[in-house]
Amino acid sequence: MKKGTWYFEDFYVGQEIPLGCRSVTEEEIVAFATQFDPQPFHVDRDAASASIFGEVIASGWHTCSMMMRMVVDSVLGASSSMGSPGLDKVRWQQPVRAGDTLTVSYITTAVKASSSRPDRGVVWSTWQALNQRGEVACIIEGMGMFGRRPKEDGDA
Amino acid sequence: MKKGTWYFEDFYVGQEIPLGCRSVTEEEIVAFATQFDPQPFHVDRDAASASIFGEVIASGWHTCSMMMRMVVDSVLGASSSMGSPGLDKVRWQQPVRAGDTLTVSYITTAVKASSSRPDRGVVWSTWQALNQRGEVACIIEGMGMFGRRPKEDGDA
Repeated sequence: MKKGTWYFEDFYVGQEIPLGCRSVTEEEIVAFATQFDPQPFHVDRDAASASIFGEVIASGWHTCSMMMRMVVDSVLGASSSMGSPGLDKVRWQQPVRAGDTLTVSYITTAVKASSSRPDRGVVWSTWQALNQRGEVACIIEGMGMFGRRPKEDGDA
Repeated sequence: MKKGTWYFEDFYVGQEIPLGCRSVTEEEIVAFATQFDPQPFHVDRDAASASIFGEVIASGWHTCSMMMRMVVDSVLGASSSMGSPGLDKVRWQQPVRAGDTLTVSYITTAVKASSSRPDRGVVWSTWQALNQRGEVACIIEGMGMFGRRPKEDGDA
């Protein structure tokens, strides 16, 4: 693993990692939804304006996937990540509209070394996306499995 | 709404709706992950073969998104869907590999008419994806908001 890699030992309860911000365009919203979630209010401007949302909104899966990309760019991409067993909660609290900018943070809520497998541990985290009005647009509570830092890698 | 539309009243506890099956290719796995989850074991064949997974596996978000598309094709696409407040659980129980075929079903677990808004209700459901070996690859427990059937639409 290269220098700067995140290992299990680098996560601690209360840790908040800012992941930056990301805007989304109508083109991106429609492209994702056309492939994975072609409900009228995600892909059809006219149908969306007649819906309770008033305009095209992002698929919740798209919002989560955009947040995932930000977690990978800042944390998982240079880490000992061994994948995830799953999520404990997702809440889509505000529609994500074209032109919205999401500011995302990763908050560590629990860590537990594996008792059966000494080479790894589980990190629980909450990912929060605020829109440009400061409203919570999406919250994800999930788990990730991480390898422990090898002894020769300068474990203090 | 057109004939055959799913309204809130069409869901009941214990209902199981088969959504068919869907195979996934390495090209699709890499394309999704390149955009949203570029961890080495999702996008890089060599890195993946050195990982605990042994070969490229689908991003969990990709698996969920593929399942979503199947739910839209069979249910939500012709429904009074008003979006979703969120999910209560996701479990990625088996890696999804190139060439795997997922057989997906939608199981209604609870229904509740809104007390404050007489035009809608919430449906809780479990979506289950089995792979071609009959193993549960992914389970999603979530909610959807649906409009109630209009009186003039033949509400019995």
